[in-house]
Amino acid sequence: MKTLEEIGKLAKAAEPALRVLNTGKKDQALLKVAEELLAKTADILEANETDVIRARENGMKPGLIDRLMLDESRIEGMAEGIRQVAALPDPVGEVKAMKQRPNGLLIGQKKVPLGVIGIIYEARPNVTADAFALCFKAGNVVILRGGSDAFHSNQAIVDVIRGALGMEGIPEDAIQLIQDTSRETAQRFMQMDQYVNVLIPRGGAGLIRSVVENSRIPVIETGTGNCHIYVDESADIDMAVPIIFNAKTQRIGVCNACESLVVHEKILDRLMPALKQKLDEKQVEIRGDEKAMAAAEGIIPASEEDWGTEYLDYILSVKTVSGVDEAIAHINRYNTGHSEAIITSDYANAQKFLNEIDAAAVYVNASTRFTDGFEFGFGAEIGISTQKLHARGPMGLEALTSYKYIIYGNGQIR
Amino acid sequence: MKTLEEIGKLAKAAEPALRVLNTGKKDQALLKVAEELLAKTADILEANETDVIRARENGMKPGLIDRLMLDESRIEGMAEGIRQVAALPDPVGEVKAMKQRPNGLLIGQKKVPLGVIGIIYEARPNVTADAFALCFKAGNVVILRGGSDAFHSNQAIVDVIRGALGMEGIPEDAIQLIQDTSRETAQRFMQMDQYVNVLIPRGGAGLIRSVVENSRIPVIETGTGNCHIYVDESADIDMAVPIIFNAKTQRIGVCNACESLVVHEKILDRLMPALKQKLDEKQVEIRGDEKAMAAAEGIIPASEEDWGTEYLDYILSVKTVSGVDEAIAHINRYNTGHSEAIITSDYANAQKFLNEIDAAAVYVNASTRFTDGFEFGFGAEIGISTQKLHARGPMGLEALTSYKYIIYGNGQIR
Repeated sequence: MKTLEEIGKLAKAAEPALRVLNTGKKDQALLKVAEELLAKTADILEANETDVIRARENGMKPGLIDRLMLDESRIEGMAEGIRQVAALPDPVGEVKAMKQRPNGLLIGQKKVPLGVIGIIYEARPNVTADAFALCFKAGNVVILRGGSDAFHSNQAIVDVIRGALGMEGIPEDAIQLIQDTSRETAQRFMQMDQYVNVLIPRGGAGLIRSVVENSRIPVIETGTGNCHIYVDESADIDMAVPIIFNAKTQRIGVCNACESLVVHEKILDRLMPALKQKLDEKQVEIRGDEKAMAAAEGIIPASEEDWGTEYLDYILSVKTVSGVDEAIAHINRYNTGHSEAIITSDYANAQKFLNEIDAAAVYVNASTRFTDGFEFGFGAEIGISTQKLHARGPMGLEALTSYKYIIYGNGQIR
Repeated sequence: MKTLEEIGKLAKAAEPALRVLNTGKKDQALLKVAEELLAKTADILEANETDVIRARENGMKPGLIDRLMLDESRIEGMAEGIRQVAALPDPVGEVKAMKQRPNGLLIGQKKVPLGVIGIIYEARPNVTADAFALCFKAGNVVILRGGSDAFHSNQAIVDVIRGALGMEGIPEDAIQLIQDTSRETAQRFMQMDQYVNVLIPRGGAGLIRSVVENSRIPVIETGTGNCHIYVDESADIDMAVPIIFNAKTQRIGVCNACESLVVHEKILDRLMPALKQKLDEKQVEIRGDEKAMAAAEGIIPASEEDWGTEYLDYILSVKTVSGVDEAIAHINRYNTGHSEAIITSDYANAQKFLNEIDAAAVYVNASTRFTDGFEFGFGAEIGISTQKLHARGPMGLEALTSYKYIIYGNGQIR
């Protein structure tokens, strides 16, 4: 088993070759990886079975076992995802804003890979292939630290990818898996800023918080979403109800699901009965303030804690406000910087909401569920950034690049 | 004296007003700040004298006292710097890449302020005004933590700025100075990621390292530069010597000064005598490997340690290589990701060097001294980033912004 130090050095050694790999070669390698994943399906499923058996013995919950388990169609899905990344345009190499300075220097900003990317993730083995494909297409080396529950599955997938890279004459260390899945090793990994340029945690809020607090490597924070929809006085109820129903119930466990409704007091009596009836179809529990409770039957009282809670469940909180300013102040206080929407037919309130809400994605008259790399047209995503530095919102290939200035001179001195 | 917690809350409270301040209002406030700095010159100089007297008593070195000391012309310089920032275009509000998706959603990327920026810096009081002007113009709130040596000067400058903001009806807490200059308070400040979006250290390598190691807030690393010039076999000696002389001696204490020369062995005998003669004008000490020592009189031996040293002094190391590949490998091993140059007349080697060197700025046939926000045409700079995340190289106003997605819909659901 390699030490973290050895893994870091091997990653750094592979980096220069990856940095200059041309798009054709990268795409060819990705297609080979997809092909090999399909060819080695039996090996991967065998390794996955070992993980699943152990997880069952350890009493893992069925929902988590479902995330862990692979079958032929899931491996086909992985391979298809990799083919899709191969088909995306390569961000690396584009030169922007090249300008001639008064002294004759020609200065431009060239897009380059970030270098070495660390990914810390939990029990979903498909992240292994996804994360590799995106990092690789943008010319980066990746070091993966998956959860112990998926260890054999991750190892099998990484072995297949490394084998495919080897066949294409590309350094296999473009992808490495940390085999020691202990907590201490994860902690030490987060200190390796001499080898790793950026760390992206993918998983629950606890994992992400732990990485942010302990990492010396720059982190891109992803994922948690306490998303609001504000229903303005002027909203069309026939538009508001389907949007809220969609944002709350279309998929409950995702970060762009709506968790909290903010409602103008003057539309409350018209909105709540219709909304309650619709949400009852999915047995959504509504927790409201006093005014909301008075507006429809069957709403239970919300506590202060509800305003800040990402339920990831069939639960919705409802806060009443007297206008758009109070709505914006409430949302800016409790949101997690993810996705926020206003339903309105008022031009000024729409523009005010777009301007003043502090979040990665701000919507007028649409469901928050669209905050997603595919829906935004990026073709893929490595996560949804809820921080402001480097990348914000859905991160596609471009978020996995940096830039350098290239300068053409003919003897200039200062 | 306010606690850090109070300072953080006041910054957050000021943030929404700053976020939506229009350009005209910001520029007017900056001009008022410049005017007030000039009007209150006597107060600032008096406070500065207190710092200087104490620094002398504490035995501060004359070079550092010079950096600390203010006079009328330096305060005029501060005011002029602020006026220049007022004249720059405002990056905030630009919407890029707005596109209609197949479902009719109109999605665009809007440039917004970062939010609250922390600056930790050492004994130069002019940073107080500079950093404020740039952060403010980009719509950000700034919390400053200056060194104890400049405390009275910083406080006087901050008082003047806050007063001017108040006259313009802008929240004075757009700028706050941490009055407790103890190390423990600085450490606690670096943990305040609930209030501060990004931390930018400005100062020596020790300060920057300490911030990177201790901060929970995302940091933009700036400053250290072990910059190389590679003299290719095909270089024009008459171009190489002035560039090297300029990059090494025009200003020795700056991060874009050349610290190390990498020379093709086939040009060594022609380059070194002419170079040595020129560098002797400024008594530059040359430390070389064996081949370099053999090429000219008066070169002293370099040790392994020299290759990794940022001298910030009249010292230059010289490493001999057998070709451009070895030069690139050497530079990528020892550089700090700042500025690197090749002197060549060979097209392929120029392109290879631009492609393969991993640094913020890569030059062909020009001095490394041009890596600077003003020289690059940004009008100003808050520092030079040597990391790859968010911003790389000279950071102008744009580096002090983030973006958010704004989405116009008409009832879209998923």
